Amino acid sequence: MASRKTASKKRAPARKRSARSAPTRSAATKKPARARKGKFVYDFSEGNRNMKDLLGGKGANLAEMTNIGLPVPPGFTITTEACRAYMQTGDVPDGLLGETERHLKALEREMGRKLGDPDDPLLVSVRSGAKFSMPGMMDTVLNLGLNDQSVHGLARQAKNDRFAFDSYRRFIQMFGRIVMGAPGDKFEEAIDQVKALRNVQADTDLTAIDLKELVEEFRRIVKEETGREFPQDPREQMRYAIRAVFDSWNGDRARLYRKQEKISDDLGTAVNIVAMVFGNLGDDSGTGVAFTRNPATGEKGLYGDYLPNAQGEDVVAGIRNTLPLQELERINAKAFKQLLKIMSTLERHYRDMCDIEFTIERGKLWMLQTRVGKRTAAAAVKIAVDMVGERLIDRTEAIRRVTPEQVDQLLHPQVDENARDLKEIGKGMNASPGAAVGVAVFDSDRAEARANAGEKVILVRRETNPDDLNGMIAAQGILTSRGGKTSHAAVVARGMGKPCVCGADALDVDLSARRFSAGDVVVNEGDLISIDGTTGKVFLGEVPLKEPEVSGEFATILEWADKVRRLKVRANADTPEDARRAREFGAQGIGLARTEHMFLGDRRPLVEKLILAATEADEQAALDALLPLQREDFYGILAAMDGLPVTIRLLDPPLHEFLPDLVELSKEVAVAGRKVDPARVQVLRAVERLHEQNPMLGMRGVRLGMMKPGLYNMQVRAIMEAACRLKGEGKNPGVEIMIPLVGIEEEIRRSRAEADRVAREVIKETKVKVKYLIGTMIEVPRATTIADKIAEHAEFFSFGTNDLTQMTFGFSRDDVAKILDVYVTHGLLKVDPFTTLDREGVGSLMRLAVEKGRAVRPSLHLGICGEHGGDPSSVEFCHELGLDYVSASPFRVPIARLAAAHAALGSVEAASK
Amino acid sequence: MASRKTASKKRAPARKRSARSAPTRSAATKKPARARKGKFVYDFSEGNRNMKDLLGGKGANLAEMTNIGLPVPPGFTITTEACRAYMQTGDVPDGLLGETERHLKALEREMGRKLGDPDDPLLVSVRSGAKFSMPGMMDTVLNLGLNDQSVHGLARQAKNDRFAFDSYRRFIQMFGRIVMGAPGDKFEEAIDQVKALRNVQADTDLTAIDLKELVEEFRRIVKEETGREFPQDPREQMRYAIRAVFDSWNGDRARLYRKQEKISDDLGTAVNIVAMVFGNLGDDSGTGVAFTRNPATGEKGLYGDYLPNAQGEDVVAGIRNTLPLQELERINAKAFKQLLKIMSTLERHYRDMCDIEFTIERGKLWMLQTRVGKRTAAAAVKIAVDMVGERLIDRTEAIRRVTPEQVDQLLHPQVDENARDLKEIGKGMNASPGAAVGVAVFDSDRAEARANAGEKVILVRRETNPDDLNGMIAAQGILTSRGGKTSHAAVVARGMGKPCVCGADALDVDLSARRFSAGDVVVNEGDLISIDGTTGKVFLGEVPLKEPEVSGEFATILEWADKVRRLKVRANADTPEDARRAREFGAQGIGLARTEHMFLGDRRPLVEKLILAATEADEQAALDALLPLQREDFYGILAAMDGLPVTIRLLDPPLHEFLPDLVELSKEVAVAGRKVDPARVQVLRAVERLHEQNPMLGMRGVRLGMMKPGLYNMQVRAIMEAACRLKGEGKNPGVEIMIPLVGIEEEIRRSRAEADRVAREVIKETKVKVKYLIGTMIEVPRATTIADKIAEHAEFFSFGTNDLTQMTFGFSRDDVAKILDVYVTHGLLKVDPFTTLDREGVGSLMRLAVEKGRAVRPSLHLGICGEHGGDPSSVEFCHELGLDYVSASPFRVPIARLAAAHAALGSVEAASK
Repeated sequence: MASRKTASKKRAPARKRSARSAPTRSAATKKPARARKGKFVYDFSEGNRNMKDLLGGKGANLAEMTNIGLPVPPGFTITTEACRAYMQTGDVPDGLLGETERHLKALEREMGRKLGDPDDPLLVSVRSGAKFSMPGMMDTVLNLGLNDQSVHGLARQAKNDRFAFDSYRRFIQMFGRIVMGAPGDKFEEAIDQVKALRNVQADTDLTAIDLKELVEEFRRIVKEETGREFPQDPREQMRYAIRAVFDSWNGDRARLYRKQEKISDDLGTAVNIVAMVFGNLGDDSGTGVAFTRNPATGEKGLYGDYLPNAQGEDVVAGIRNTLPLQELERINAKAFKQLLKIMSTLERHYRDMCDIEFTIERGKLWMLQTRVGKRTAAAAVKIAVDMVGERLIDRTEAIRRVTPEQVDQLLHPQVDENARDLKEIGKGMNASPGAAVGVAVFDSDRAEARANAGEKVILVRRETNPDDLNGMIAAQGILTSRGGKTSHAAVVARGMGKPCVCGADALDVDLSARRFSAGDVVVNEGDLISIDGTTGKVFLGEVPLKEPEVSGEFATILEWADKVRRLKVRANADTPEDARRAREFGAQGIGLARTEHMFLGDRRPLVEKLILAATEADEQAALDALLPLQREDFYGILAAMDGLPVTIRLLDPPLHEFLPDLVELSKEVAVAGRKVDPARVQVLRAVERLHEQNPMLGMRGVRLGMMKPGLYNMQVRAIMEAACRLKGEGKNPGVEIMIPLVGIEEEIRRSRAEADRVAREVIKETKVKVKYLIGTMIEVPRATTIADKIAEHAEFFSFGTNDLTQMTFGFSRDDVAKILDVYVTHGLLKVDPFTTLDREGVGSLMRLAVEKGRAVRPSLHLGICGEHGGDPSSVEFCHELGLDYVSASPFRVPIARLAAAHAALGSVEAASK
Repeated sequence: MASRKTASKKRAPARKRSARSAPTRSAATKKPARARKGKFVYDFSEGNRNMKDLLGGKGANLAEMTNIGLPVPPGFTITTEACRAYMQTGDVPDGLLGETERHLKALEREMGRKLGDPDDPLLVSVRSGAKFSMPGMMDTVLNLGLNDQSVHGLARQAKNDRFAFDSYRRFIQMFGRIVMGAPGDKFEEAIDQVKALRNVQADTDLTAIDLKELVEEFRRIVKEETGREFPQDPREQMRYAIRAVFDSWNGDRARLYRKQEKISDDLGTAVNIVAMVFGNLGDDSGTGVAFTRNPATGEKGLYGDYLPNAQGEDVVAGIRNTLPLQELERINAKAFKQLLKIMSTLERHYRDMCDIEFTIERGKLWMLQTRVGKRTAAAAVKIAVDMVGERLIDRTEAIRRVTPEQVDQLLHPQVDENARDLKEIGKGMNASPGAAVGVAVFDSDRAEARANAGEKVILVRRETNPDDLNGMIAAQGILTSRGGKTSHAAVVARGMGKPCVCGADALDVDLSARRFSAGDVVVNEGDLISIDGTTGKVFLGEVPLKEPEVSGEFATILEWADKVRRLKVRANADTPEDARRAREFGAQGIGLARTEHMFLGDRRPLVEKLILAATEADEQAALDALLPLQREDFYGILAAMDGLPVTIRLLDPPLHEFLPDLVELSKEVAVAGRKVDPARVQVLRAVERLHEQNPMLGMRGVRLGMMKPGLYNMQVRAIMEAACRLKGEGKNPGVEIMIPLVGIEEEIRRSRAEADRVAREVIKETKVKVKYLIGTMIEVPRATTIADKIAEHAEFFSFGTNDLTQMTFGFSRDDVAKILDVYVTHGLLKVDPFTTLDREGVGSLMRLAVEKGRAVRPSLHLGICGEHGGDPSSVEFCHELGLDYVSASPFRVPIARLAAAHAALGSVEAASK
């Protein structure tokens, strides 16, 4: 933090003050303005970028740009607080309309035009803008202020009848659909009818007269479809538009997007009312979108799209193919130069990569939006590391800039370019990196349905729009034939971290026939394809994938993270291979080596013998046969992790999991009738005997150890024999024996004593002294309440948060997936507690266990080995709880390393969402 | 308490001081002596009856009798503390032997005889005696001090060679078996051989010479079987005997008995060393056992057995048929009169019914033991109420004197004497009341096996001994053909509260043939019989039983209890019949009316329709059909409980419980093959769809309400329509709607809001205003951690401790019965947590919920509706927690009433076990 402040101060004198606004203060010294009670509207000059909570991202950044002197059309922002009040009461809060009116009057004064003025009307846009960017998910109304009179004033002022009436028909269309709820296709049909009548192809071929007629027709459609007249009073237009933007916060798309992005439903959106500038006034006008660095790779250099003679939404919508931003230099060198300078200013001001939207109106550049740009994981890492090199930020800030979710993306498999027989069938823009394999599906609803049925799907579209969100969420990756790097598909896919290839214009996509052709190759819906978002390539069939590596800037940032984190990171691994991989990914030990996998495969017959044993002698014989095999298992893992701790859990699952399924076997025996094999009947009887109503709460874990002590003794012996052998070979095995499912003091007291006895026996026999720890999983709620008693017999606790969550909630993971989905969708739960630790319930029990355990045994070693160990928010909680380590699956180890660093840095951004 | 003290003080002056001991103080003013550190041995004059913890029951009462001047043979007691030290270290504690020696010397001085003296030896008994009476479960050694020399001295002093050598051979036999571990049957075989040689039948026919030879033979057996010589040194004999008594605390029988009686394994036993007196010195000697009132019925009057010329153990063992105690008047009028006086003294002194053991040695009466006598439930109630009438105790004391377990016994069914066709086949003593029906079994091991296999069993024996304990525990009732009212069978059965008929000497029991005959009726093992322990009658076949009533003294004591308790008592009842019965038993409302039973029987087809509904319309149709039926259900229950609260739980179990079993249906469909009924396949698909891995943790409770809101709405509507109708009819329904399985705040917030909405709708429709409460069960561990949040939406909490115990322990009740049995048997758990609330784990979560809930809503109404609501220890805990009520099954309502009174009186005796 200290170095960040210093860096800001250094650069402050270099920054120019705006001619137009109050003196700018640097971001680091500027305090966020407090929301003034009862104040619902802020002029752009009143806000700053730290006020996203109140003004939304768009409003806060428009204010920031205004205040650092960039050319922003004047305007003001209605706060998210007003939206929240509206959501609560269903009505706009008292005073809002009066305040809006006062700000509008001031805007009219500043612009020297009046809203709805018949001679020289002020037009405004009414734009949504929440704290977190939700591209295209909420509504915006452009050209507000036009009516039957003012359209003529606009025409006179612009000296362009066609422009004025095109703007008016666009306004009625947009307002009619969004604000008044008229069906959008009615308007489209009307346009098609006029075009047919005039026998023209493009909208641009329609004349001012045609458009004036369309305006009449649109007003008729509005009346017919909504029962209300299109409002002529611009004040009334504005009041309706504000409500419509508020309402769009709770639209289906917006809700789905928030669920996907884990954004709280309570935040609400701000509303930005901005004087209109027009990019569609002719060839000296235009509109564009740009990033200050490449958001896909993080490389420096210009990255953007420009569309001459167009309004802003056209770029994002991907409807027309755009020009690369570089072309602007040729079209308008002055504006281009100014744009480059502004982009540089913004990057230095925000000390980060920014994205911008701008419009050029008759040669003059206007900034319509900026924000810290969304980027791929690779770009995030590269930009963060580069900016440290450029002394824009320090290492701490660089660590903060990379999210654990981005690390997750970097660990997704990549196309193995060295593989043979790659059938490349096309290439588009590498909009969002990573490889995806799936069947091509040409419609989002079908994509969702097929994904729900278990298929892997690639969504193929000409372009995507917000209605495709469900399909994009369901798909492994997205492929479009149109649209640039800033198109909807590209932006949303990057946001989701999904591979995306866009604008692959060699592909001829035929949506109605559900197929695309690429040269002479035809891909029908259901055919398997692969895309590589890192290179932009499209392949026929399934391509071979290779495992990701931790190298380059990625390795750098993780090394920086290692230096700041306090939590150690271990891996859950059951085999030597997994252990080696975990070690490569930076694991500092194994937090959970499950032994149940070692009872499967070719050992099944032995395990079956063990379970079916009629006498103690039979049982012992089966155990004796298993001992050398288990010893090899443990030898391999301990060797792979030489010098690091390895927590081995004694057998946990119920024994019937190793036998055939009850229903299937019952059917088999019933159908066989009198011809049945007696051996199968014997197995069926055992399955029936061992069958449990609720196996999760039955004979497993330490209960197994208590009821069949020979089993745990065999495992402990195998572990210790392996460890002693390694030690004898000059290695340094780190043995930790973990007893699962303890809920009663005597369970751990006795099983610990027994394990100690066997361990000492082996040490005596082998004459090799190996140190070992004995501990327990804390996974039964009762264990948390008697953790003090348990700690008397355990050297470590490992929180088994999968089971602890199951039992604390009373949720069987196998059974409640559907319930959880409904609960999260409908807001009964904010997150799935099996993904992110439930701090309130499960977490409070963990805290109790930590306090009670450490009170009795201050040296108690504490970790977590549930799947939460790889979840960033849960890692943060483990840090707060004071655990010693988290343990995650090998591929999540790097995520946990970064998350642990974030936790140590006190990054709470994720939690505040 | 106050009146108790007064009563004691009043009587104090009337009591005579003992000539032999220090002045006696009344029990009420006498403070229990603190155990002096390092003091392991107490002379009888040093102890008193309040020192049971330290001296055991026998030792404390021998001290008490000594101190009030009764004729007790002198002796001393080694403390339970010494035993506990022995159990911990495996060796007697430092100083014990020296202290014992000093006390032995003092005893020798007092008696004027020395242990092992060849001319006039002192003999002692070494008797076990724990805090709680464990009749026959631990070991005792009589006649200690005899050896090859002193036996001659004894003969000379007693002027009876035969007596002396009989005593010696008994001593070797007892010592050899108990202390040295020689098998008992070897001695029996030796006796049989001598008898065969001499051609005599009875032991008493053996001469002094025969017995002397037997002594030689017994010593040989000891040497051969144990490898050690029988010790001649009386000091050594004593040291071994003390250890043997300590060891017997952990004998199998003792452990089993303690498990049955819920006595802690940690207490240990004291050892009493008492100068021997002899009841077998001829016809002017004898031994007896007596109660100061009838322990079976509680009626006043003499109750006991006398056996002339016998040692004490013979009476209890039931080997010889005893004389009624009344006969003693004829045999020794003076001793009889003295005995009556002592019994009266003891009853006034202990202010309770006492049992005693005495011996008459050559006409002189000696008291060998007294204690507050075990009694049947009926006797406990009658004695308590009678003693209040006699002003011996006050009402508070009377309430304390009846245990909730005894109330349980009183609620067992009785033989319906008015029934026709009762086939009475015999009559014995009504040793322990109540009716029992089962198959006759003639061996305890077989009785246990058949009971474990699910049969109801009556154990039939000539007489029982401590080895029959497992069979007695397994049996419904006990029938013997020999032994009096104080025989082993009678005493143990009364202690267990099991029906017992003993000494039914008209029955000819043939153990080897496994049958008994009664006149011309022969009952073989496996035949069904009934016994009535209240009347002593034995019946062929199964007799009709009638429900118990709460009347007479029983009703009186419960009314007294009602006046002192704070906890209210409700019942768990699902039908109007159960509700009415609960009301008769004193329930103050219904704490849990389950609705799932209402979905069975002839409503199954409707419920099946509901579950299989393909459309919402189908579902609604099924709900509409259920509504009027449910309305009638609730009308009936609310009417039966008019004026009292009724907590109705909305549907809880998973829906698949209402469909056929998956395995059976799968087999049916598989076997049917192509001939299968398509409707069955449809049902199978639904069963498969609804199947859950762990239904306990699946789609049930409020989750059902969230996923199928129509179901809960229908139930709420039915409840409110029923209540409004009742209110319209002038009744006063007490509606409490309970939402089960809440673990998440939103679940209760939303379901509560929905229930409120429906309830208000019904009130509006019917124009009848009915008050209602809405609350939740606290049964998911997480609910306890967020009880403050839940309390914001709930007017009451009802602890569902069945589920809370399941989830807190991670124990599925259906699956862990075997594990729990092993855990309790082997001391991993002290009690089954499904029977008695686990205060440490589950209880700590309950406490958390109470504190959090009341902090937010001080008026929060709190109850418990798990099966623990009828368990006395759990009721006590609920009282301590500050709950408002407990709810138990109807037949446990009287138990809960008394337990609640005990809790209010601060009775902690049960907890201290």
